[in-house]
Amino acid sequence: MILSQKEQYQEQLNGIFQALADPTRRAVLARLGRGSASISDLAKPFDMALPSFMKHIHLLEGSGLIRTHKEGRVRTCALEKKPFAAVETWLSTQRVIWEGRTDRLEQFVTAGHDKEDPE
Amino acid sequence: MILSQKEQYQEQLNGIFQALADPTRRAVLARLGRGSASISDLAKPFDMALPSFMKHIHLLEGSGLIRTHKEGRVRTCALEKKPFAAVETWLSTQRVIWEGRTDRLEQFVTAGHDKEDPE
Repeated sequence: MILSQKEQYQEQLNGIFQALADPTRRAVLARLGRGSASISDLAKPFDMALPSFMKHIHLLEGSGLIRTHKEGRVRTCALEKKPFAAVETWLSTQRVIWEGRTDRLEQFVTAGHDKEDPE
Repeated sequence: MILSQKEQYQEQLNGIFQALADPTRRAVLARLGRGSASISDLAKPFDMALPSFMKHIHLLEGSGLIRTHKEGRVRTCALEKKPFAAVETWLSTQRVIWEGRTDRLEQFVTAGHDKEDPE
């Protein structure tokens, strides 16, 4: 199935918001905001079995919010900041809607179209 | 169970991000950003049975992102803008972490404490 750009953006937002809906995953993101870390270092603060913790890591990686790479036996995680911009774009779009700026844009476009049309 | 303020904030974020992780719910929020609407008007653009749509409405209401009230047979939904600020606060906190400003804050606090302590 080929998704349109709009559908891809919606799919991306689904994954990001799902990833952010958990306090462990948000804590991991905050930790990675200070720099990359190995999975074992990341897991230390959490009273959680490693397989459970790994599910959180996989979900974060799937959402694009982190990337991981393995060197020897150590898997290191790093933050991906770009998806945060998608969330900020969505939030600022809501504010644009609240302020009625989309309506004014529509009026502007319609007014411009009327002028071009002599009837 | 009594939750601390920090725990309440985390619970609130869980609910908000969960609510935002669905395209129907985001579309409802965008629609309500232009003004309040009845459930039946809100449901119209979606090819979805009413009970399924109502699940989305209940989840949005539970997260605090919308409020509803019933007059006669009509239930009207309105956007609650305050929870959006919680998301913005979380996002800006991440940027503060990325820019290392929390470290500088810690250094500042520590330096201040050293001065006050004559030993």
